[in-house]
This record gives sequence, structure tokens and C-alpha cells, in this order.
Amino acid sequence: MANGSSRATTLTDVARLAGVSVATASKALNGRAGVRTETRERVVDVAKRLAFQPNALAKSLLAGRTGTVGLLTSDMEGRFSLPIMMGVEDAFGAARTSVFLCDARGDSIREQHHVDALLSRRVDGLIVVGSRTEPRPSLGRGLPVPVVYVYSPSDHPDDMSLVIDNVAGASLAIQHLVTGGRKRIAHIAGDPGYQATHDRARGAEAALDAAGLSLACGRIHYGSWTEAWGRGATRMLLADEPAVDAIFCGSDQIARGCLEVLRDQGREIPDDVAVIGFDNWEVLTVNARPELTSVDMRLEELGRRAAQRLYEAIDERMTPGVEMLHCQIVQRGSTIPLN
Amino acid sequence: MANGSSRATTLTDVARLAGVSVATASKALNGRAGVRTETRERVVDVAKRLAFQPNALAKSLLAGRTGTVGLLTSDMEGRFSLPIMMGVEDAFGAARTSVFLCDARGDSIREQHHVDALLSRRVDGLIVVGSRTEPRPSLGRGLPVPVVYVYSPSDHPDDMSLVIDNVAGASLAIQHLVTGGRKRIAHIAGDPGYQATHDRARGAEAALDAAGLSLACGRIHYGSWTEAWGRGATRMLLADEPAVDAIFCGSDQIARGCLEVLRDQGREIPDDVAVIGFDNWEVLTVNARPELTSVDMRLEELGRRAAQRLYEAIDERMTPGVEMLHCQIVQRGSTIPLN
Repeated sequence: MANGSSRATTLTDVARLAGVSVATASKALNGRAGVRTETRERVVDVAKRLAFQPNALAKSLLAGRTGTVGLLTSDMEGRFSLPIMMGVEDAFGAARTSVFLCDARGDSIREQHHVDALLSRRVDGLIVVGSRTEPRPSLGRGLPVPVVYVYSPSDHPDDMSLVIDNVAGASLAIQHLVTGGRKRIAHIAGDPGYQATHDRARGAEAALDAAGLSLACGRIHYGSWTEAWGRGATRMLLADEPAVDAIFCGSDQIARGCLEVLRDQGREIPDDVAVIGFDNWEVLTVNARPELTSVDMRLEELGRRAAQRLYEAIDERMTPGVEMLHCQIVQRGSTIPLN
Repeated sequence: MANGSSRATTLTDVARLAGVSVATASKALNGRAGVRTETRERVVDVAKRLAFQPNALAKSLLAGRTGTVGLLTSDMEGRFSLPIMMGVEDAFGAARTSVFLCDARGDSIREQHHVDALLSRRVDGLIVVGSRTEPRPSLGRGLPVPVVYVYSPSDHPDDMSLVIDNVAGASLAIQHLVTGGRKRIAHIAGDPGYQATHDRARGAEAALDAAGLSLACGRIHYGSWTEAWGRGATRMLLADEPAVDAIFCGSDQIARGCLEVLRDQGREIPDDVAVIGFDNWEVLTVNARPELTSVDMRLEELGRRAAQRLYEAIDERMTPGVEMLHCQIVQRGSTIPLN
């Protein structure tokens, strides 16, 4: 690996002699964007003159990356982090990059330990995945590699964050029901201790408003992210407003409970009542009877986008701030009579 | 980090002068087991004489570890790998060790790439987690760190593997039903393309045999790992053998479908029919109506055990072969009238 005992030419030598920064020298030698043609030619010329022979580490510095990205997660159910991880890997190209996932369990000491471990192993960047949509503390400005926050945004405006647009996602759900001719639409929401719950409620109300409709029952039912709550809320709802013709549920688990009680009470789905969930968690949606229409958060796309942001930041093209991704509806038999 | 320009004393120097292997020198200086007292004293004496000052890397070599373990998985639903990872971390002590999870997706080229990436980052060992119980190809003997195979055993007898005892787990399920007074017990099995399916069927038949019972319907129903199959099989089963009083399902998904059809057909659970699943996947078991009794594979314990095996192997105390862990029953309302 070493080039013998005499000191080898380094990228720093090339940069100094060419009168550019190390980052620019790296980009120039690797054909990256953001370097003027004459600068690139000068750097390449200097590198040839110095017989610059990058070793393995220098090569990786040159390429701007070591081929490894750290993914810190506090979502140990893996519902968010694993699809995001797959998207990151797909974007980087699996044959060239390894993503190392570390479990922080929402514990800042553990998180710092993992950050140190990853940095000491020369990762090119960090992706921090949260399990809630509330902002989380920034890892700070002092890190030697770029960081992208995914799902939970950073609380610092100079960081790069990628999140789901829950308000717009819920509006899509309501629009889907309205398009299907539904008029008496109820919303069974999740745990009111989550920002996502309120964002989805806000999106639902805005879309109902825009369609000139008001909430069936006149209020949103708040509870928890469970099937049991979906069952209980649906029983209440049918008692209060027997003419309800559609129910937007804040999660697929809630929707599964809702479907069960509707069936128990002899309601035909979707003819009498349409049901739509949120998350598009396939274990729950595809196995439902009928199959459950749901709002998909496009987590793999979120991962791909995070990888792209990280790439750009490694090339010193940062995009600070919070970027929101749109959800999409996956239509199945619980809202549309498909068979 | 460097000790200046003069060559520093290394652990190899200490070992050579003390007349022991580097591994023994390391163990002696770290107070590990497996070193005789007089050997330890000699090594410590030599280290003092040479003013042996381990640097950061040497310290980690000395301690026998760098504080990082790689976990290779092909289970990107995370159902097996994430609980196993948590167990590994708990055993190692989160504050001292980072576990890096890499996603191989069942692709051997991708797997090799991740192995290289992890080894070049000086992990102390590898844990390879499969998503099926069939043996998998060994990573081979040439690796510089120990490897433990978890859930899927290695196909090489010299490797260390830790797996679930599916045969015994299924027997436990049947024994639980028999203890509850059930006589006409059916088994709805999963996908016949999986070894786990056959192991569970074998365990169920053995336990029925031991109890002097035979299978309700006279045969096992094989299908897939889905709720839809659970529904379909239960309908068939009730038509063939209306007096069935217990159903052992090959997975919790199957059991959820089974519960649904039993309820649709007016059977009381557990009074008329008891139902038990396999996996104890809480999303499905705790949200079922009634809550679902299930066979728990103790995946976190599997992870803790894997960490322990890896520790021992780092200390050169290998335990080659396949070790099987026992499952346990988690009792809930679907087999025992709890409320």
C-alpha cells in the first residue's frame, strides 16, 4: 500500500502547486461538476508533472468518498429506516457503496457513540433517520462530513432535512374519497401526542373545506395508533353518525380495526363505507379484506433523495433547509369496487 | 496519535521477548481468562521493561476489539434482524460497541462487497443473519475475524451457527393446546417451500403422537405465510371437520386470518376453538381479537448469544457447530379464557 520510504506526492501538493483548494483539485481530477475547464486542465497538468500516484486512501479522498455512509436510526421496528436504507443504497449503487445502519434508540449518548464510531471509520456522510416527524436536535456544525436528516427534520435551519408532507398526504386521501362520490366523511386520527396526527388532521380538514364538505360527526376522533382504537372509534362513529359513507384513518393499523367493525356490523366495503389508511404498510394493507387503499409515504424515494443530497454535499453543493416530499395514494378494494 | 519518529515498542515485541503468541500477550495484558499466572506475570514484566505504550490502535488490538461488529442481513423487512441486532447490542453493552448493519439482500456479490467494506474498517467480528432456516453458504475460513451465523446456519461444520429449534417450538404449541384440554387439533402450515414449515409440521405431529392424538382432518394444510391463506384454510378446515377445537397456525399472519374466519362463522375463541400462532410478532398478536397466543423465537436472546459467541471467538474460544435455542409460548386470550 505504501509507495516506499520516500514521501509520496499528495493531493495537497497538487492543489498547492495548481493554486486551488484540495476540494477543487479532487473534483478536477475526478471530472466532477463545478470546476472551470482551464482550472481542471491546470490541475491535471500539475498532477502529471508531479507523477501523482494516489494510494488507496488518497484515491478514496480523490473520489470524494470512501464508499461508506452511516445511517443512524432510532426506529428499531424498521418501518421507516429499512425502506429508507434501501432507497439510499439504490441511489448510491449497491456495488460501490456500503450503508452502515446503527441503532441509536432515541438516546443521545448512544447516538454520539455511534457518530464517533462511524466517523473514525471514515464514512463519507451521515443520514439520520427519525421515527417521528417532530424536529430533532441537530448533530451540530462541527462534523467533518455532511449530514442529511430524514423523516425527522433537524431543528437547525442550516442543516439539510427531508421530510414527508403529511398535510398534503391527508388532503390527497380526502380528495380520493370525494372523487369517489363520498359526502359524509369521518376521520379517525392517531395519537394526539404526535405532530403527524395533527398534520394529517389539518390536511383532511382543509381538503374537506375545499370540497365544500364538513366532517361527519362534526369532530375528529383522536386516540392511538392501534387496531383496538380503530375498532373502538368505528363503533362510536357508527353510533353517532350511521350514515357515514367514508372513513379516513390516520394509520393502516387503525384502518384494519375499522374494517373489522364495519364488517361485524354488516356494512359493505366499499359500497356502503369506503376506508383509506395511511402508511401503506403492506403486511397490513394487502392482507386486509378487502385490500386496503392507503397513503404511501414513498420512503424509498426519500432514501434516494437523501443519498442525492449527500452526494451533492460531498461535492460542496449544500441545500440547507427542509425539503418536503409528496405522498401518493395506492388504490385498492377498500375505496374502489375493484372486483 | 504517532509516538514520534522513533519506532515504538509493539505488542509483537512484547510477545516475542516473553516467548508467547501475540494473542496470549494481549490476553495477559488485559486480564482475560486462558493465561496461566506465571505467563501473565512474565508478559506484564516484559511490557514494563520495554516501556510498552500502546497507541489507540494497539490499545484496541490489546483489548482484543475495536468496538465494532458488522451485522450482515438479507432480511430487509427487519423482522428477524432488528430484534437480533438489539440483542447483540445489549450483550456487548451499547456504550462500548457499535453494531453496523449492512443489507446484502440475499445477493452474494453485494454480501462480499459489504464484508470487504466492514473488514477494511476493522470490525472485530461478523454476525450473519439469514431470513430462512435453510443452511447458507459459509463465508469461508480465510477471514481475519470470527463469524457467527444466526437464524440461517452455515453449511460448513467448522463455523459457529445459532438457530431456532422450530421442531421443539411447534411441539410446545401442541403441548400448550393439549394441556388446555383440546382433542381435535388441526395445523395450518405456511409455505411448503420453507424448511421451517416442515420442521414445525414435524414438531406438531410428534407432540400429537406423544399425547396419543391424531391430526384433525387427518392432514396438514400447506399454503403460504399470509392472512388470506389463513382465512382460506380455516374455511376448508371447518367444512371438513366442524368439531375442530384447536388450530395451530404456522405463523401469526396465518393465525390472524384464521381468527377472522372463526369469528365470521360464529365460533367463540377460545371457548369453541383455541388458536395459536408462531413468531410472536406483536403488531399482529397484541392487536388481534382476542389477543393471539404465539410461539416466541426469542430473537433478542439469539442476538445476545451470538454476541457472546463472538466475544469467546475473539478470545480464541471457538464453539464450532450449530447451537439450537428453544422457543417459548407467550400465552394470550386466543388459547386461555383470560377475561
